[in-house]
Amino acid sequence: MTADASSPPNVLIIGTGLIGASIGMALRESGVTVWLADTDTDACRLAASRGAGELFDSAKTPDIVVVAVPPHAVPDVAARSLALYPDATVTDVASVKAAPLARLRGLTNDTARFVGGHPMAGREVSGPGGARADLFEDRLWVITGNAGAEPRRVDDVRWLAKKCGSLIVELDAAEHDRAVALTSHTPQILASVLAAQLVSADPSDVAVSGQGLRDATRLADSGPDLWSQIIASNAPEIIAVLDKIGVDLAEIREALAEVSVVPEAELTDAIDPVRRLLERGNDGRRTLPDKHGGAAGEYEIIPVVVDDKPGELARLFAAAGEAGVNLEDVRIEHTVGRLRAIIELDVSPTMAPRLREVLAAGGWQIRG
Amino acid sequence: MTADASSPPNVLIIGTGLIGASIGMALRESGVTVWLADTDTDACRLAASRGAGELFDSAKTPDIVVVAVPPHAVPDVAARSLALYPDATVTDVASVKAAPLARLRGLTNDTARFVGGHPMAGREVSGPGGARADLFEDRLWVITGNAGAEPRRVDDVRWLAKKCGSLIVELDAAEHDRAVALTSHTPQILASVLAAQLVSADPSDVAVSGQGLRDATRLADSGPDLWSQIIASNAPEIIAVLDKIGVDLAEIREALAEVSVVPEAELTDAIDPVRRLLERGNDGRRTLPDKHGGAAGEYEIIPVVVDDKPGELARLFAAAGEAGVNLEDVRIEHTVGRLRAIIELDVSPTMAPRLREVLAAGGWQIRG
Repeated sequence: MTADASSPPNVLIIGTGLIGASIGMALRESGVTVWLADTDTDACRLAASRGAGELFDSAKTPDIVVVAVPPHAVPDVAARSLALYPDATVTDVASVKAAPLARLRGLTNDTARFVGGHPMAGREVSGPGGARADLFEDRLWVITGNAGAEPRRVDDVRWLAKKCGSLIVELDAAEHDRAVALTSHTPQILASVLAAQLVSADPSDVAVSGQGLRDATRLADSGPDLWSQIIASNAPEIIAVLDKIGVDLAEIREALAEVSVVPEAELTDAIDPVRRLLERGNDGRRTLPDKHGGAAGEYEIIPVVVDDKPGELARLFAAAGEAGVNLEDVRIEHTVGRLRAIIELDVSPTMAPRLREVLAAGGWQIRG
Repeated sequence: MTADASSPPNVLIIGTGLIGASIGMALRESGVTVWLADTDTDACRLAASRGAGELFDSAKTPDIVVVAVPPHAVPDVAARSLALYPDATVTDVASVKAAPLARLRGLTNDTARFVGGHPMAGREVSGPGGARADLFEDRLWVITGNAGAEPRRVDDVRWLAKKCGSLIVELDAAEHDRAVALTSHTPQILASVLAAQLVSADPSDVAVSGQGLRDATRLADSGPDLWSQIIASNAPEIIAVLDKIGVDLAEIREALAEVSVVPEAELTDAIDPVRRLLERGNDGRRTLPDKHGGAAGEYEIIPVVVDDKPGELARLFAAAGEAGVNLEDVRIEHTVGRLRAIIELDVSPTMAPRLREVLAAGGWQIRG
């Protein structure tokens, strides 16, 4: 049974962690019949109790099987599902696509019913206790139909992603893995490597740090068990990015060794590779999609000083709201050792003069 | 004349960019006599017109000279100032301390009156047009008295930093440079190197990116001219950090090459270096000072869905304020292609239940 059939397909979710249980909750809210299976029966029961579906009765036959197990278990579980349910569409939710697909093809020839998926959501929490029906709402769900996949199987996974409220992007497995190696896995490694240097640093060194280091290392909070599996599963693509980064870092290191020894007059030339790298970094930032999914906008930053106490932010945002100004982003920077904070308001350049005027009229202290 | 004299010292600021002009404005607000000098007479006039001080008359004799020129010009200008004003205390504001001090010692033996300084503030704007009197308020001002500096000269620079509203940290030049290599310069290089990879990437790869990549590359917006000078001036310390990072990256690369070829049964062992790096990254993040300058706090994140339009944030923050809840941080995550945003509110774990309750009662949609 597929998405275009008259009654909705029945869905079996294998693996009731954060992602599996959240998919179940989203589908149940739409009235879809969902069955849950997990080798961890406690997790399965907890997911069921949270409204993710009913415990699976093996006499039943699912139309769609969602393999929501840890990345390394995906090929085995997908192969078994294809064998057990010869009419079902089988999909997965792992954040790496090519290697598991290759391993699946090593296990079975019956892959025309398999379509990979990667719902791009998740949090630092894990397990069914953190699941929620709206986890995927407005998030990207990458669908990686393999070359031999039947079109109606791809339709089934589109139906699934839409039921969960996601925005669908279709890429092939290799494209997907190349993209996430660059935009997710390598940034994770760099953030962790940078944060790792802090462990052996003199505490007084780390004390002289600010928002820049905090931003640059935020990803280093990720969970080691899941992320080491994700990174390992996409090893070849990540190696390709790391090697490019290695070339750039080696060039910078060479330039830095050079500037330490050249005479003053040759300094500008010696610094040039560093300047060019910084310029390329400026250019790279401009390629990022903005928060609305369009091309990167240029926002103006308006820093406002507020007392660091309840109610002050509300007063500030009320002033912005009354001015009809929409905020693109907000950052709270607590200053060291005092009871005031600097709130950075990002607004479009066209809105900025109006906001400055209204805030000044309201007695707010704007910096700069 | 020094800080403990009965009348405040007269201050000459050489270099009227963002930092120099802002120091002038801060001192003028306290009634200190400030003179301004700059080879760029337009910049000097603009700084004076903004209230940073009076144009310098070379018949006058300053008590304190603030050398606020680009990093590479510091030793020359400091040496000339020491020669011209044989009673004055001379300080600088450059973000690198050891190499300029060594070069200064090569130019003059008269360094007992020189005390280095690094006010840790600044923005992406530059020039006197962006200057403001409160730029250094509540910010760290690192004072790096050189080994032979007279104590009363250090007192003069302490007086200067306090007049600007800064919090004083005293480090020696080598300690300072080692600290900023780790916490500022190397993060800058890694962010720029990562962002630089986006330039040659397929646009569809970059489209599949989110807040993680945005955070990890934020520093890559820095200005190439200033930052290439800063990085070049601290080359040896940065090389030391880059080499440690290189060792870690090489180990990760080796592990990734290994996981691509080992049999399934040996995968866990092969991944182990990746997992250990991620664990060290977790540990490193815990060493960061929190926003109030204390040990890192653990905040609870409450994600709230709001319509992406003026006034909504004000309503949300009013609700938090009425509940008496102080917010530690706020992030606005615009979701892709829809007119709603997710606002992440960071609050202390003790405040979180109360905030959840109040928001739920107010009809706000909380995620998770």
